[in-house]
Amino acid sequence: MNNSITILSPGTVANMVCGFDVLGFALYDPCDEMELRLLPERRVVIQPDPVYQLPTEPEKNVAGAALLALLDAVEGPVGFDLTIRKHIKPGSGIGSSAASAAGAVVAANHLLGNRFSNEELVQFAMFGEKVASGVKHADNIAPCIYGGITLIRSIHPLDIVALPAPDLHVSIVHPQIEVRTADARAILKQNILLKDAIKQWGNIAGLVAGILQNDLALIGRSLQDHIIEPVRSILIPGFDELKQRCLAAGALGGGISGSGPSVFMLSATETTAQQVAAEMAAVFTRLGIDFHTYVTRINQQGVILKSENPT
Amino acid sequence: MNNSITILSPGTVANMVCGFDVLGFALYDPCDEMELRLLPERRVVIQPDPVYQLPTEPEKNVAGAALLALLDAVEGPVGFDLTIRKHIKPGSGIGSSAASAAGAVVAANHLLGNRFSNEELVQFAMFGEKVASGVKHADNIAPCIYGGITLIRSIHPLDIVALPAPDLHVSIVHPQIEVRTADARAILKQNILLKDAIKQWGNIAGLVAGILQNDLALIGRSLQDHIIEPVRSILIPGFDELKQRCLAAGALGGGISGSGPSVFMLSATETTAQQVAAEMAAVFTRLGIDFHTYVTRINQQGVILKSENPT
Repeated sequence: MNNSITILSPGTVANMVCGFDVLGFALYDPCDEMELRLLPERRVVIQPDPVYQLPTEPEKNVAGAALLALLDAVEGPVGFDLTIRKHIKPGSGIGSSAASAAGAVVAANHLLGNRFSNEELVQFAMFGEKVASGVKHADNIAPCIYGGITLIRSIHPLDIVALPAPDLHVSIVHPQIEVRTADARAILKQNILLKDAIKQWGNIAGLVAGILQNDLALIGRSLQDHIIEPVRSILIPGFDELKQRCLAAGALGGGISGSGPSVFMLSATETTAQQVAAEMAAVFTRLGIDFHTYVTRINQQGVILKSENPT
Repeated sequence: MNNSITILSPGTVANMVCGFDVLGFALYDPCDEMELRLLPERRVVIQPDPVYQLPTEPEKNVAGAALLALLDAVEGPVGFDLTIRKHIKPGSGIGSSAASAAGAVVAANHLLGNRFSNEELVQFAMFGEKVASGVKHADNIAPCIYGGITLIRSIHPLDIVALPAPDLHVSIVHPQIEVRTADARAILKQNILLKDAIKQWGNIAGLVAGILQNDLALIGRSLQDHIIEPVRSILIPGFDELKQRCLAAGALGGGISGSGPSVFMLSATETTAQQVAAEMAAVFTRLGIDFHTYVTRINQQGVILKSENPT
């Protein structure tokens, strides 16, 4: 039996344009690197992160809370010691807390002989999201664990549908501004127009059909958000110009990642994705806002096993 | 060259539960039978229907208006003489006007050597729907012309996505009560809750994924409508009991067809579809409301060519 494992837990994009609260996908870059070690006693130890000031008390740490939830479903003298090297910046909008929570429970499941299903792992990891944002949402955790593009059809009861994803390229820009998830949620209108909702569900239906039929043009036509983006994009300086320039550079479409401030764009080729990232960089350079860009692909695997270390 | 053609133009189910205004499918039964004859001069003649009092002035007749729209795109001394034997009762909620409009232009296109695309035929037939209801909607016309299940992703610009449909069985009950489309539309709320809309677009995404992956259980779980059905179902006596009994009999799911009063249910097998139709009959028999039931399948072909008659 191995008593230690090292995994890469990926960033994820939730709220995929017309798929607010229900569609998300995983990335190859950035990823957190996590090492989990089995302990011979029932406790969870979180090693301090050298870069970010994250809580080390397990019940206040997103990975710790997820591991405690998993431990509740396990009998016997077993516990976990977790070291995280965080590369996904907290607050970036690309699933930093989900990567910690999901990566921890996937790693634990490996060390325990894969006794839990992906759906059970999502349930455990949602306790981590609750620590992070107060809400047990699954739209980052599900793609982090399943890989590819996932649909959360329903949260009560939990119904996750894994959608085989085309091999699309992703450009992401993370402008170094703060958009608090709570603020991004507070500015949303609780009432919307039926006619806008009809457009939105026409588009999400088109997006799912495009994904499953590998119809990139249909994916592009469907990546429109008539409800959330018009409200939330005001929190991101330069958003309209950014989007217009990315589409002009050949992106299929894109929008706000999670609740922002990161913005993502999908492209058919890596060349286009690089050009799109260059446009992203140009906009924030001109605005004088620090930023970081990523050019990557949709990650079909989810959490990736890096090495297992026998006793 | 043939100068006369006989076709079967199918009934259709629009507003497919969570797919309000965007998803519809075609039926094998009932169908209108239509005979279209080429005329050597630019005019449209509508023969009187022996059963229903439908207008025979072409611009006031749904099939006539559709043929006039098509004729506008054709040059030369050509016209049409149309005889309709209507089997889809007007006002039943299973696409009676769409069958007339769509059947007429598909027949005309055959006689003219198939010069128009399906999308152009939908555009012509929408002029017929405008005569019928005042609105140029496409959610019955598209499945009537394309067959199977169709998504109207967008109406401006028109974007029709044909979804390869599983071979599902359909039970339909048409209670002989009047629900005017205008009334059914007037009682809808123009504002809806964002949280209900999120459930709806989770469900339509699940429904499209279920259709394209032939996952009947997912189709069943996704056939939920949190927005339209709770409002419109009050116009249909016995609706809640009807639905509950159909699901208990094994139906995957279903709801109001179009704007009613017909109700449809999807089932995996013909045996189940027959049992579901028996439940439908039992409910309206007990309520003392005349009704008609159909047990049929999703029609993958759309308008069916019955015979071509050379000069």
